[in-house]
Amino acid sequence: MAHDIMILTETELRKAVRLDLDVVDVVEGAFKALATGDVIMPPILSMAIPAVNGEVDVKTAYIPGFDGFAIKVSPGFFDNPKIGLPSLNGLMILFSATTGLVEALLLDNGYLTDIRTAAAGAVAARHLAPSQVETAGVMGTGVQARLQIEAAHLVRPFGRVLVWGRDLAKAEICAHDIASTLGIEAMVEADPARLLAESQLVVTTTPSLQPILKAEWLHPGLHITAMGSDQSEKNEIDPKALVTATTYICDRVSQCERLGELRSAVAAGLWQKAEPAELGAVASGLAAGRLSQADITICDLTGTGAQDTAIATFARRLCAAAAAGTVMEV
Amino acid sequence: MAHDIMILTETELRKAVRLDLDVVDVVEGAFKALATGDVIMPPILSMAIPAVNGEVDVKTAYIPGFDGFAIKVSPGFFDNPKIGLPSLNGLMILFSATTGLVEALLLDNGYLTDIRTAAAGAVAARHLAPSQVETAGVMGTGVQARLQIEAAHLVRPFGRVLVWGRDLAKAEICAHDIASTLGIEAMVEADPARLLAESQLVVTTTPSLQPILKAEWLHPGLHITAMGSDQSEKNEIDPKALVTATTYICDRVSQCERLGELRSAVAAGLWQKAEPAELGAVASGLAAGRLSQADITICDLTGTGAQDTAIATFARRLCAAAAAGTVMEV
Repeated sequence: MAHDIMILTETELRKAVRLDLDVVDVVEGAFKALATGDVIMPPILSMAIPAVNGEVDVKTAYIPGFDGFAIKVSPGFFDNPKIGLPSLNGLMILFSATTGLVEALLLDNGYLTDIRTAAAGAVAARHLAPSQVETAGVMGTGVQARLQIEAAHLVRPFGRVLVWGRDLAKAEICAHDIASTLGIEAMVEADPARLLAESQLVVTTTPSLQPILKAEWLHPGLHITAMGSDQSEKNEIDPKALVTATTYICDRVSQCERLGELRSAVAAGLWQKAEPAELGAVASGLAAGRLSQADITICDLTGTGAQDTAIATFARRLCAAAAAGTVMEV
Repeated sequence: MAHDIMILTETELRKAVRLDLDVVDVVEGAFKALATGDVIMPPILSMAIPAVNGEVDVKTAYIPGFDGFAIKVSPGFFDNPKIGLPSLNGLMILFSATTGLVEALLLDNGYLTDIRTAAAGAVAARHLAPSQVETAGVMGTGVQARLQIEAAHLVRPFGRVLVWGRDLAKAEICAHDIASTLGIEAMVEADPARLLAESQLVVTTTPSLQPILKAEWLHPGLHITAMGSDQSEKNEIDPKALVTATTYICDRVSQCERLGELRSAVAAGLWQKAEPAELGAVASGLAAGRLSQADITICDLTGTGAQDTAIATFARRLCAAAAAGTVMEV
């Protein structure tokens, strides 16, 4: 039976959906819904294709009260840069939550994932970082390094940013970009220990397979958001840091123990504490976050289908308001 | 980075892709590839949404040698008929198997699933049914009842069809449709025992939760294709029939033991035989199928992502040859 669907391109979505406090609130809403237990979020469908150095992930979640649910398909083909193409792509499909009909195709090439991932970092910073942040540090020099700092700055308007990366030339460009986007001081810090020492808020954004952040660098009044590890072989944070920290929080425990920093800490036999709380529970006041300015907090982000449903629903609404997109009868 | 994608609507796909021997061969190719072990086919992502009597399944498979792989999203919202909408919908997304870029959106509302499901029935009949089939029987009166008979007729050109359904009025319409499509005799048989007795090939196509086909109805020279059960609570075939039959074959063992007829036979403690062979192994000559005309064979179809990749790739090729579809830069 024919019906209309809305097709939204990356260009249209980039114009309509910006990284701002509205997006942060929408993503925070998804985390709070996760905390209530009424969200239905099946395990990620993941297919590795070693023959072409590729992988595909599919995420989804149904959030009661949202009029749609998204299915997101994220291919990562890591030989693409050799032929001038980006590694990451993908799209989101928005379905009616009452009829299951396709309502919109969001052909974002991963843009909405970038935004909702950065917004999750802002939710973590809002609820876990010390109230005063003078200096923020970022490890990694890619798209998320820039966006995580931009997002955190929405909730903690720090005046200085330190950037560390394995490639100092890329770190220079990243620092320059951050300085010009936010109009604040941003500079390279080649020594990660010093970056930690001078920062009250640190975001790790690398695909590292070995820890790049050592437990002995933790200090009172520090918050770390670790968003790089989203596969079972990745590990950015020294596993000892998770038990050294006052509080360690997961976006989703069932994902972090398979894909996040928690996996390495459990594998090393270090994690003996009770099951960690989730970010949505902290944001809802159902679980404790930072209890004192001297606490050391770590938030582990692996990325949830609930964020995808939230951003896709929000993006469709913004595009409709802007009369963007192409209607197609199918 | 902008690139072109092809958007294909249900109307365009219905015009370009017909249920014929070419489609049967394409789907048989997918099953043969599954048998070689080189296909990558992750478990189905399945999300039930009880609040709206809905569910969504996502299937995919990477088949070496195919230039694309499909991700299929199939929502089933079973209250839709109350508001005049079909229960089943969905779309397929075709990705490049070398770069992961979206190449085509096949907005088929489930049409390609109907075709590839029927084609799998033809593959089963081709390799398992007795060489001479005079009468074919079908249990159920929906879209698949019609298409399964049409597909089986491509490989076993029987002259007579018997149709059974709980609703005899619907069975009358189904028989009438089959007779006019195939130009052969087709009639209702209200007694399922007699339908079995008179048929050499029977296809069960219902969503039944209780067996509708009893083990005592099996007779030498019979082949049964059971395609109705694709969820863990469904069961069309008396579990005893699986052990009574000479040979029981799965489309995919790992799926049939969770979603197909095998599940019920295992749950009842009846299945004590070795692991069943798969249809692709039979089609490739790697496993035994029918060894004598007197054998009783059963093939259990739950639907595989490999079929989806095969039909989506083939549909894109047919549409390209017909210059059908809309190109969009995204």
